[in-house]
Amino acid sequence: MAKVKWGIIGIGWFGEYHGDALAGLPNAEIYALCTRTKSRLEEVGRKFGVKKLYTDYNEMLADPELDVVSVTTMWDQHTAPTLAALKAGKHVFLEKPMASTVADCRAIVEAAKASDKYFMVGHIVRFNPRYWAAQREIAAGKIGKIVSLYARRNVPVSIGAAVLPKIGPIIGDGVHDTDIMLWYTGAKIETAYAQTLNVHGHKYPDIGWTTYRFDSGAIGVCENVWCMPDHKGYFPDERMEIIGTEGGIYLQETYPSLQVVDTKGSYTPDPTYWPEIRPGVRGGALAEELNYFLNCVINGTPPTVITPEESMAAVVACLAAEKSAATGQVVKVAEMV
Amino acid sequence: MAKVKWGIIGIGWFGEYHGDALAGLPNAEIYALCTRTKSRLEEVGRKFGVKKLYTDYNEMLADPELDVVSVTTMWDQHTAPTLAALKAGKHVFLEKPMASTVADCRAIVEAAKASDKYFMVGHIVRFNPRYWAAQREIAAGKIGKIVSLYARRNVPVSIGAAVLPKIGPIIGDGVHDTDIMLWYTGAKIETAYAQTLNVHGHKYPDIGWTTYRFDSGAIGVCENVWCMPDHKGYFPDERMEIIGTEGGIYLQETYPSLQVVDTKGSYTPDPTYWPEIRPGVRGGALAEELNYFLNCVINGTPPTVITPEESMAAVVACLAAEKSAATGQVVKVAEMV
Amino acid sequence: MAKVKWGIIGIGWFGEYHGDALAGLPNAEIYALCTRTKSRLEEVGRKFGVKKLYTDYNEMLADPELDVVSVTTMWDQHTAPTLAALKAGKHVFLEKPMASTVADCRAIVEAAKASDKYFMVGHIVRFNPRYWAAQREIAAGKIGKIVSLYARRNVPVSIGAAVLPKIGPIIGDGVHDTDIMLWYTGAKIETAYAQTLNVHGHKYPDIGWTTYRFDSGAIGVCENVWCMPDHKGYFPDERMEIIGTEGGIYLQETYPSLQVVDTKGSYTPDPTYWPEIRPGVRGGALAEELNYFLNCVINGTPPTVITPEESMAAVVACLAAEKSAATGQVVKVAEMV
Amino acid sequence: MAKVKWGIIGIGWFGEYHGDALAGLPNAEIYALCTRTKSRLEEVGRKFGVKKLYTDYNEMLADPELDVVSVTTMWDQHTAPTLAALKAGKHVFLEKPMASTVADCRAIVEAAKASDKYFMVGHIVRFNPRYWAAQREIAAGKIGKIVSLYARRNVPVSIGAAVLPKIGPIIGDGVHDTDIMLWYTGAKIETAYAQTLNVHGHKYPDIGWTTYRFDSGAIGVCENVWCMPDHKGYFPDERMEIIGTEGGIYLQETYPSLQVVDTKGSYTPDPTYWPEIRPGVRGGALAEELNYFLNCVINGTPPTVITPEESMAAVVACLAAEKSAATGQVVKVAEMV
Repeated sequence: MAKVKWGIIGIGWFGEYHGDALAGLPNAEIYALCTRTKSRLEEVGRKFGVKKLYTDYNEMLADPELDVVSVTTMWDQHTAPTLAALKAGKHVFLEKPMASTVADCRAIVEAAKASDKYFMVGHIVRFNPRYWAAQREIAAGKIGKIVSLYARRNVPVSIGAAVLPKIGPIIGDGVHDTDIMLWYTGAKIETAYAQTLNVHGHKYPDIGWTTYRFDSGAIGVCENVWCMPDHKGYFPDERMEIIGTEGGIYLQETYPSLQVVDTKGSYTPDPTYWPEIRPGVRGGALAEELNYFLNCVINGTPPTVITPEESMAAVVACLAAEKSAATGQVVKVAEMV
Repeated sequence: MAKVKWGIIGIGWFGEYHGDALAGLPNAEIYALCTRTKSRLEEVGRKFGVKKLYTDYNEMLADPELDVVSVTTMWDQHTAPTLAALKAGKHVFLEKPMASTVADCRAIVEAAKASDKYFMVGHIVRFNPRYWAAQREIAAGKIGKIVSLYARRNVPVSIGAAVLPKIGPIIGDGVHDTDIMLWYTGAKIETAYAQTLNVHGHKYPDIGWTTYRFDSGAIGVCENVWCMPDHKGYFPDERMEIIGTEGGIYLQETYPSLQVVDTKGSYTPDPTYWPEIRPGVRGGALAEELNYFLNCVINGTPPTVITPEESMAAVVACLAAEKSAATGQVVKVAEMV
Repeated sequence: MAKVKWGIIGIGWFGEYHGDALAGLPNAEIYALCTRTKSRLEEVGRKFGVKKLYTDYNEMLADPELDVVSVTTMWDQHTAPTLAALKAGKHVFLEKPMASTVADCRAIVEAAKASDKYFMVGHIVRFNPRYWAAQREIAAGKIGKIVSLYARRNVPVSIGAAVLPKIGPIIGDGVHDTDIMLWYTGAKIETAYAQTLNVHGHKYPDIGWTTYRFDSGAIGVCENVWCMPDHKGYFPDERMEIIGTEGGIYLQETYPSLQVVDTKGSYTPDPTYWPEIRPGVRGGALAEELNYFLNCVINGTPPTVITPEESMAAVVACLAAEKSAATGQVVKVAEMV
Repeated sequence: MAKVKWGIIGIGWFGEYHGDALAGLPNAEIYALCTRTKSRLEEVGRKFGVKKLYTDYNEMLADPELDVVSVTTMWDQHTAPTLAALKAGKHVFLEKPMASTVADCRAIVEAAKASDKYFMVGHIVRFNPRYWAAQREIAAGKIGKIVSLYARRNVPVSIGAAVLPKIGPIIGDGVHDTDIMLWYTGAKIETAYAQTLNVHGHKYPDIGWTTYRFDSGAIGVCENVWCMPDHKGYFPDERMEIIGTEGGIYLQETYPSLQVVDTKGSYTPDPTYWPEIRPGVRGGALAEELNYFLNCVINGTPPTVITPEESMAAVVACLAAEKSAATGQVVKVAEMV
């Protein structure tokens, strides 16, 4: 069993995390890296012992040895490298959100369909074992038909400050919960209404509150506050409440399953998404989803956890919410596409 | 110090609770009762040892000995007895919500202002020590300026079934959180958007989700689900999250401060709002607010915890939310009045 | 109805809190104060507007107008003023723990029995509505026969530092939970085993862990750590778990019912025991227990919430635990008395 | 890279779970099964598609192709197959507790040391990411020196009924927390004191409460109640509190990170230890520890997460606690070995 050769396009902090997770997967080899900044490229290349380093992804994609690429560029620069990688006959693992416009999502969905390689967007929350368990219970009919959903995914001011120059909370984090709500309900979103507030004057507003109406009648609300108090003691402050006609499900991450108090305050080391399980190696849901995609490639079985169409639907709903926030009006999702 | 003579108009379950709370206040005398159904009147009269029993509140209000009345009639029948009681020169403690229309609220506010007796609406949540403590911290500037609020106040299907033929969740429970949000922010609500869903086919929808935009920029969301699963183990499922520019406050009632597990399931005896502290005597926030009003009467100091105008503002915002749910449009609160 | 004239002997921080609580009871008058330090006496006298100020409690007790006294002296100086007050014909509300030796407890119990006035020890936890609700469920048979109990009552290093020069955690805080366990089980404690640790070098050890065996077979464990991290965010960290043959009860104070996050960290304002409900006025369980005793005096009905014998039993068990910690041996409680 | 050939000796429910976990590891092959009951052997053989089926482990161990064995026999029948497997030159993954006597533990430790193959006891809690994160923080000095520990690991009556005919709660579950406490403190246990209670009349008592004194001065308490109410809604009820001189750590599994409410009550699907992640495949900590051992074998690096001596130390302390419970005396651990 030869190791699968994996490349990463876009080596920001999360591209590096892909490497940290791949480093713990014995059947994968971090084979090639691509990013624009040469010093960064060399630094991360040294860290992972990678020889094949590129500043141009087209050169990297020309290597016939390369099996899989992670696309971890900025969210609004996903489309070109994804299309190029699919065209070059690589399996593609693309970070969320799929893309920044409806047209780009459509182009990616079509390219993925046309390819005989595998494609998947990294909807990491689907690999959180608690969300997964919830879905299983819903599918088993335990809570009946879903009628109300509430999701919270809040991060503190200091994290918001790092991210808000690049992306806003609805498309940046709400896309997770939008996807989960679509997954759990099996319904379509008809309308979106959102309010945003720019508290700290970054490029994007740091608060987003979205209300969805599903075609099943269900109501879903997403809270995405990227200016939670820094001293809250943990982040994300992540919750999900799903009320059905026969029952309900309540999820809560990350506290109170773990709290550390030290001389400065309290915090919760991430036990779920990308915990560093050995120096330089990350486990958790990030490793799970990459390992899942890796096994799909090894075994020749297409990924089924999430389809390209589903990834696109989550983006379209979030874009509808952003439009609502900008216009003050209720937006029909059908008019977005 | 003679006991204050207190009458109750409207002896449903909550009118009786007023009696149960008054029974624990040594300076109050349950002096008179009024309700339409004679058998009910006599039953509750016997329970509290009350001789003065009326089916017509005008007769009761004619008694010059009577000092104070609780008005605990159906929420859409508050206005006439309240106006009559004020006109008769009685102190009036009115249950929430103040009234069912803007016009009725205005009439009550004006009558209360014109009277030299005291008037207060029973916004019981303001007497929950945790909400009160939160307000004190906010007033002390601990969390800076409020930018986002979320409230949940959910009750199970079985409770919903009992109440939904009479009142819906936004005006019935959301009025609590609307009032608290107005109190905490010190701002005005500019717009309301709401979605409702009628799951169980009662007169009123059993789910209401409301988004408010305040003139301070803050966003507030109220979740009012009256069809929470019966086996949740406690109710209300009551939460409040207040995020400010400098900090935040998180409230959670009633679980997990208390959980009882027995052979049938689990439940949380109410430790906060109207716990039965001795057979036939209720304490908690209900007793606190009645005791507060009682002491205002005894000491001749007007109640300041909530003004009639504040009670009206909460109702107006909820009616705007109800209108939004009915029309599918965002509603400007200023156009309601 | 004339106001009941109340005196306080011992004006440390908790004697002052008694005053703060009495200040909120319309039927009580803070009538006399006694403490050794003259400047402190005058300061607190001014605060409460009290004219009758004493440095010698015998002089205070000679006043025939005085109805009730709170004894809030240091825990090992409870006996003399309590006996003197009972002998002088006053109702006595004594702070916990009853006394520091078995002999002193016995003397107080006998004096209380011999008096025709009322006597009660301030076991404030019995007036916490959650503990009270738990007892009611237990008495109603909801959890069957109790087989296991666990109590935690932890406070941070900084609080420990203030108290540990005067009293240790087992007799200081464990006495609360020991009393509650005796109350809930209706059983007697047969043996006590305890371990203590002196982390910070104060007069008393700051950690106490006690295991009780009850004559019913039940096992009870009390955790009393007075050196919890200061940044925990709330205190006390107070829990009670009661497992019975048919069910169980789980109590948790004070977080997570309320959390405030500010620019320095997080904290939970006390919502339960002695919250300041107006400037200079304390409510909560402290006001409840004083009000209860006040109403016993007004109505001429003896207090029944806790008997002197029960207060003594809790102290004896704690002293057995302290002896176990000192000797390393299991101690039979019967040999203590 | 050829697959590692893995055998399982002892196919009770947990031996089967080993198979379910191995089924999800692409580099492992479930190669051989051994159990006494032929029908069970064939049933599980069919489930995993295994051809090599044995009722005598000596026959199985004679197969030179076999690389690794899981020993998942009854806890008091661990020794013989473990010694035989080591003697036969196999890598051995042994379930906890290591053995039922000090002498057996010693024999296993010595055989493991004498072998050039790998040996590890399945202390699964060390592979729970939250416990692991806690250890990392402790090792980094975040909470200073540990002074107090509390662990709860409770399961409901119905689970207790299934297990108590075979093993008791102190050695059965307390061994987890005893090991964790030894791991976190890096200290030795000097004395053990325990109380047990047999509520339901099974072979073993269903309640165990243990107090350890460590040579570092730390105090550790383990709660092991195997008769928690069935309607608690989740299990295990698992908590760990670690208080140090500079901070503290608080762990809580499994609720409230996930709760499902249905028409019968509420429950928490296991998200941590051995969740079924696909039909017939288990993930979580069980898969993690087997995968860890598998990678040790593949890479030729000895396992370091837990040593045989550490596994033995946890058993010895638990046996001291059992002796204390039986005699009513404090037991010195040094006298056990």
